[in-house]
Amino acid sequence: MSEKYVYGFEEGNASMKTVLGGKGSNLCEMTSLGIPVPHGFIVSIYACRAYYNKWDTTLPQEVIEEYHSHMAKLENKMGKKFGDVDDPLLVSVRSGAAISMPGMMDTVLNLGLNDNSVLGLAKKTENERFAWDSYRRFMQMFGNVVMDIDGALFEKELEALKEEKNVEFDTDLDANDLKSLVEKYKILVDKEIGEQFPQDPFEQLRMGIEAVFSSWNNNRAIVYRKLNNVPKKINGTAVNVQVMVYGNKGETSGTGVCFTRDPSTGKNEFYGEYLMNAQGEDVVAGIRTPLPISALENQNETLYKELVGYRDALEKHYRDMQDIEFTIEEGKLYMLQTRSGKRTAAASVQIAVDMVKEGLLTEKEAVLSISPEQIDQLLHPQFDTKTEKETKALATGLPASPGAAVGSIVFNAQDAYDKNQNGEKVILVRIETSPEDLMGMDAAQGILTTRGGMTSHAAVVARGMGKCCIAGCGDAKINEKNKTLTIGGKIFKENDFISLNGSSGKVYGVKLPVVEPELIGHFETLMNWADKYKKLIIKTNSDTPEDTATAMKFGAEGIGLCRTEHMFFEESRINAVREMILAENKEDRVKALNKIEPFQQTDFEGIFEVLKGKPAIIRLLDPPLHEFLPREEKDIEKVASELRVSVDSIKQTIEDLHEFNPMLGFRGCRLAVIYPEISEMQARAIYKAALNVKDAQPWIEIPLAGNVKEYTIIKEVILRVARELNAENVNFKIGTMIEVPRASLTADELAKECDFFSFGTNDLTQMACGFSRDDAGKFLQLYVDKGIYDKDPFQTIDKAGVGKLMKMTVSLARKVKPDFHIGICGEHGGDPESVEFCHEIGLDEVSCSPFRVPIAKLAAAQAALKDEK
Amino acid sequence: MSEKYVYGFEEGNASMKTVLGGKGSNLCEMTSLGIPVPHGFIVSIYACRAYYNKWDTTLPQEVIEEYHSHMAKLENKMGKKFGDVDDPLLVSVRSGAAISMPGMMDTVLNLGLNDNSVLGLAKKTENERFAWDSYRRFMQMFGNVVMDIDGALFEKELEALKEEKNVEFDTDLDANDLKSLVEKYKILVDKEIGEQFPQDPFEQLRMGIEAVFSSWNNNRAIVYRKLNNVPKKINGTAVNVQVMVYGNKGETSGTGVCFTRDPSTGKNEFYGEYLMNAQGEDVVAGIRTPLPISALENQNETLYKELVGYRDALEKHYRDMQDIEFTIEEGKLYMLQTRSGKRTAAASVQIAVDMVKEGLLTEKEAVLSISPEQIDQLLHPQFDTKTEKETKALATGLPASPGAAVGSIVFNAQDAYDKNQNGEKVILVRIETSPEDLMGMDAAQGILTTRGGMTSHAAVVARGMGKCCIAGCGDAKINEKNKTLTIGGKIFKENDFISLNGSSGKVYGVKLPVVEPELIGHFETLMNWADKYKKLIIKTNSDTPEDTATAMKFGAEGIGLCRTEHMFFEESRINAVREMILAENKEDRVKALNKIEPFQQTDFEGIFEVLKGKPAIIRLLDPPLHEFLPREEKDIEKVASELRVSVDSIKQTIEDLHEFNPMLGFRGCRLAVIYPEISEMQARAIYKAALNVKDAQPWIEIPLAGNVKEYTIIKEVILRVARELNAENVNFKIGTMIEVPRASLTADELAKECDFFSFGTNDLTQMACGFSRDDAGKFLQLYVDKGIYDKDPFQTIDKAGVGKLMKMTVSLARKVKPDFHIGICGEHGGDPESVEFCHEIGLDEVSCSPFRVPIAKLAAAQAALKDEK
Repeated sequence: MSEKYVYGFEEGNASMKTVLGGKGSNLCEMTSLGIPVPHGFIVSIYACRAYYNKWDTTLPQEVIEEYHSHMAKLENKMGKKFGDVDDPLLVSVRSGAAISMPGMMDTVLNLGLNDNSVLGLAKKTENERFAWDSYRRFMQMFGNVVMDIDGALFEKELEALKEEKNVEFDTDLDANDLKSLVEKYKILVDKEIGEQFPQDPFEQLRMGIEAVFSSWNNNRAIVYRKLNNVPKKINGTAVNVQVMVYGNKGETSGTGVCFTRDPSTGKNEFYGEYLMNAQGEDVVAGIRTPLPISALENQNETLYKELVGYRDALEKHYRDMQDIEFTIEEGKLYMLQTRSGKRTAAASVQIAVDMVKEGLLTEKEAVLSISPEQIDQLLHPQFDTKTEKETKALATGLPASPGAAVGSIVFNAQDAYDKNQNGEKVILVRIETSPEDLMGMDAAQGILTTRGGMTSHAAVVARGMGKCCIAGCGDAKINEKNKTLTIGGKIFKENDFISLNGSSGKVYGVKLPVVEPELIGHFETLMNWADKYKKLIIKTNSDTPEDTATAMKFGAEGIGLCRTEHMFFEESRINAVREMILAENKEDRVKALNKIEPFQQTDFEGIFEVLKGKPAIIRLLDPPLHEFLPREEKDIEKVASELRVSVDSIKQTIEDLHEFNPMLGFRGCRLAVIYPEISEMQARAIYKAALNVKDAQPWIEIPLAGNVKEYTIIKEVILRVARELNAENVNFKIGTMIEVPRASLTADELAKECDFFSFGTNDLTQMACGFSRDDAGKFLQLYVDKGIYDKDPFQTIDKAGVGKLMKMTVSLARKVKPDFHIGICGEHGGDPESVEFCHEIGLDEVSCSPFRVPIAKLAAAQAALKDEK
Repeated sequence: MSEKYVYGFEEGNASMKTVLGGKGSNLCEMTSLGIPVPHGFIVSIYACRAYYNKWDTTLPQEVIEEYHSHMAKLENKMGKKFGDVDDPLLVSVRSGAAISMPGMMDTVLNLGLNDNSVLGLAKKTENERFAWDSYRRFMQMFGNVVMDIDGALFEKELEALKEEKNVEFDTDLDANDLKSLVEKYKILVDKEIGEQFPQDPFEQLRMGIEAVFSSWNNNRAIVYRKLNNVPKKINGTAVNVQVMVYGNKGETSGTGVCFTRDPSTGKNEFYGEYLMNAQGEDVVAGIRTPLPISALENQNETLYKELVGYRDALEKHYRDMQDIEFTIEEGKLYMLQTRSGKRTAAASVQIAVDMVKEGLLTEKEAVLSISPEQIDQLLHPQFDTKTEKETKALATGLPASPGAAVGSIVFNAQDAYDKNQNGEKVILVRIETSPEDLMGMDAAQGILTTRGGMTSHAAVVARGMGKCCIAGCGDAKINEKNKTLTIGGKIFKENDFISLNGSSGKVYGVKLPVVEPELIGHFETLMNWADKYKKLIIKTNSDTPEDTATAMKFGAEGIGLCRTEHMFFEESRINAVREMILAENKEDRVKALNKIEPFQQTDFEGIFEVLKGKPAIIRLLDPPLHEFLPREEKDIEKVASELRVSVDSIKQTIEDLHEFNPMLGFRGCRLAVIYPEISEMQARAIYKAALNVKDAQPWIEIPLAGNVKEYTIIKEVILRVARELNAENVNFKIGTMIEVPRASLTADELAKECDFFSFGTNDLTQMACGFSRDDAGKFLQLYVDKGIYDKDPFQTIDKAGVGKLMKMTVSLARKVKPDFHIGICGEHGGDPESVEFCHEIGLDEVSCSPFRVPIAKLAAAQAALKDEK
């Protein structure tokens, strides 16, 4: 085997993450940039695999030999000896996988200390207490993380000693106390595992390295990888062995953590904290208050300048904001870590755009540097971060639709509507929502449900509305009769205020202050770049002029899905819709439809006007008719009296319309095949509206077609209406949604008759995978946890299954019409990974909820740019 | 245009059906065989198309010229002139499409009669009355069917004349009366349509031909073609113009209708009826009683021998049983028609097998000669035909599952079960059935439901059981509370008897006598031939030793689908199943499962024993768990007390398990992924049973897999059980059902892990087409009527959609494993057209209900034989 297992810091670089891990490769990169990094080497990920491949899971001899030779080089470089009684070489041992991955063993410091070298350390530092304290700390760390002894047992010995000495703080123990503690620790180790604490530094090192490798497969690490969908190719961790430097060697020593720019705002200001005479953990622990990094300039201008120089060099080199750690040992600056810094969405945008101005990034690189999912934060109202942090949440539900909402509690849609009319801000609280609640959902600031998942009715509709929603909050109990909400042990009544954070799922029992989003400046610049590079057309799902206006503000290029049934639910027309459903013959049905038509026409006119010539895909009536009928006894009675029909006849119709599997029932174009007069009315309303509004561009969409013949039957009706209204010159198209697998399978036949397709991937997923969106919550999360699906297929397109069907559709359709226009609407249209997939398979457009238009744009631009590469 | 439009009888042959129509081509064939056929010619189907292609829908000039020249030849041949005053040529005009097709204009006789030629006819026949009677009959026929005048108006004139003459019968009118009637008819025609009755025989002929062509597109014909799925390529009809011969010219004339063999039994006996001095309609009309054809031998041995000669010649020539018509005109025999004779299923089999023995057919031809669908008649008990004919049906529902059933009415499953235990024969009458009714359905002779279609629960289960079922009988009203069934105006109570004909859907209010099927003799011979030529393995769907035994008797080659959940419903174990569902933790669940295990083991042992080494595909638990829980309040209370749990906890579980779309919910392998202990128990029962029965061959089937990972999770459980029980030497396989479109799309991945696939085309159709089988009844029939689907996709595989998915599955799977075993189970497995499709796409096996095994075998043999060609 001629494989190389161990690399000195001078042998690697930042591109070797998969061999050296993230931390290690960046240490190499800094070394090669001439930045002072404490010397060291990396036992590579290859060595980790070799360890796992060995039958007894131990380090292979060649690995041991290799790091031994690196250890010898280190001794030479430092002029110190490992375990030396005069001036011992001490090292830290740290894990480091290719991506940051909590759960594994973290760090062992001061490795190399033993009964001899502790004396050397004392001698060299002229600080006996420091040496023995380091030794006992090392034993404690090593004993716990390497030898797997309960950490509390060491703490107990420490506490016992303090009690014995009658002191309060560790710092009150002197060198002799600590010396005696070391002896107690030795006895403890022997007692616990029947072994001596290893005195040989090389044995310590071997054990440390093996412990890191072994921790790759401990439970926490496995769970972390599963939960975070870490790809299988990320396989193993490296071990970084590095010479110790000390920030706690007096007032000329210190340590700090910095970001090269402000991670919260993105401003180009050096940002960070430091503490003199301290170790890394002291900065984080919060016992002493660290100083802002700018204070270092006053304290030690030279050092500060050196640090700023490294900051500039690293940013220029990595062309990204860095999160760095440094230590000052007796006036000498060492860089211990650099990595890409975590930042808020606002900071992401600010930094990317600034870096283009500064010439550090190209526009394309800037576009690629931002996570589309993250900018969602910028598109919704948010709670004031500070206040929210200080407030305790009552419960956490599913973050179903982002944003912040504050309002008084209402328990039904009617109350929500009424109070909203009075100018009150309300939160609609329901066990679950149904289409009957639409008006109330629209009127509410936010929605809280106690049942249903991320794709429940409440969640889907709320996201469409860009409205804050927390779904499936199981810890909240609703008593609809008494109108109470019990949550976190408190009982809330109607009119009590609550606050919802739809991005985190947190529910608060108070009014929290809200901050509105601003989509200007850097954000606008970024979006202009995205527009420049994307290939996909980004449209929006919208049913109202208001939502359409919002989406246009966010850059939508038209409507990709206008659900006409949402208009059917409005109070002014729902009764006409019910009349239509209750009609016993075509004549009565037509009479009722005639009442709805002027409303529909006005709806479409409003939308066309806002669109100013941009196209609108208008879907004909889709849901099963029973959704329009009342459910509760008292509502049935009310409707009966309003429509002057008997309660029994309504109940009979409800029973007749009952379906075992409404998802697969009498809906979509099936309604129109059986009752063509419904499509006729809708087509008439569309054409009349289009004739009234300049440049209106309706694309009429027939839902749920699975067979070209059902499509053509309805198409003929629409074309006849167009002729009857002399609307042939309207700039219109007729097409279908691809929702039924059979439509995909016969896409060539359909394409011949259609002007466009739009994938309804929600339904396509339901049917292709055989999951009901309303029911799958019971097992789908577990399916994702078990890795059966990588991601929830209702959130990200299931490429291997549904995606294959989509590809087939595209290829069949384009075989018939090479330039055939194909898009996607529905939930997946707002998911960046799905948008990228849509780009890859050659779709023309993506439609998503208004508030996700910028996300989809950015994702589309990134997909196009990745494609360029 | 050099197209030939008109053919003399001597110019065509039997292979020219698509040009000359069925009737015409057979007249040609007989002519060429030297059999005496009255001369004539055929205005072909091409002429019909030319007629429709002409802008004004009239006969093109070249067609008219062609038949005029044929008319001239006919005059020459007969030595008579069309419209001649001395000896006129008279002809019949008859329609004749490529397949027999009611709805079109049928026949005009005596065409050529006018005011002149009627005298010639009188002169030549020396029978003035006959001549005028022929003339007025011709006017009546022609006036009605060609000139489109209401036939009742002619009848009214006739009646008025009889009243005037004070006579009772037409025959009492003399020549002069009839002459005056002709004058009245002329006035009638003029008055009704403002035209003279045409006197020019050629004008009459042109009008007659155009009327036939025009009738091709009348409403009745269009409806007929639609309802009978007549393919579009059958486009147009021919017209047969033939010299008149008369069977009513006295005692040396006559007419008859015969079958070359007995169409009821198939026996090789000349079978038919004749009447002397009569026309064709007299034999059919039933005013005079015709004589059996054998009587002709005594009456006129020479003629009889001649007729028998033609019978033999035609059978030998066509190699099929013929339905023939003849006329004797003054001692001379003419054959007027021959065609393949309609026959019962029993006759079909008898004739085919006899004809092989006689050397008329090869085995392969015999196998191909029988309609698989028809033999269904032979596989179920039947009512005595004569008695049934004489009994009036009360109502007709959907013929959901064939056979005859007689019993006393019960209104629920429990009563059915109890009475059956007491030895009573019962009919279970329900609005619709659910899995809870299984025991009762099993106990009943037959099932009658008032709701649900051909694929409703009742229908599917009944067909599976081979049990007579009439579904969706909307004319029957059930009052479950009062236990009454109102049908055909009569009220039936519990214990009243009814009879059901599941093959016709007819319900009778009396006890009808029943005849049991016999599957021996000729039928057995036929099945042996089918076995010899088929390529597909035919298995059966069976859940019990009894059904398995039935299927084996019918020739099943194993079990293709054993639904284990059916075993869960049995009274002795349902409570353990409910305990399992109500269990709140794995421990309790396992405890309950342990109670079920011995039952399951016994079930499998019973089945393996009957199978004698033939394989059984055993599907693991599939349906949603809520199906096992009680629904009605009183049942819930009963179960609660039996299981010693609270009513509320059962209700809570029922609510928790409630699903919006159970079809797409928590069922199939999803149960096993979440509760692996269920599969574990079932696997244990299967292996233990297999270890106890010699040569047992279980193929364990994991249902509803849509993702290879969910499959492998369960497969691992099964393999572990096999290891634990040391069952590795059992001859077992593990595979999956292909029901979810995603499974088809990823069939390559699945095939790598599976030993076999079996298409569950019911579910695959539901998901691919997006139809819920339970709900689609509302629109699916209309879809078929409108031609959106050619056939109900739940009865015959939707080749363009679902079929495409199946082909894709086969090709993906065989790409991975070239010999991969693939089958189909479920409803489509018993449908001949679907079986043929399965053969075409290369499946290995088909599984169907026990009673359809012979049908599937025959269909499989036919598919293989068609393939050979």
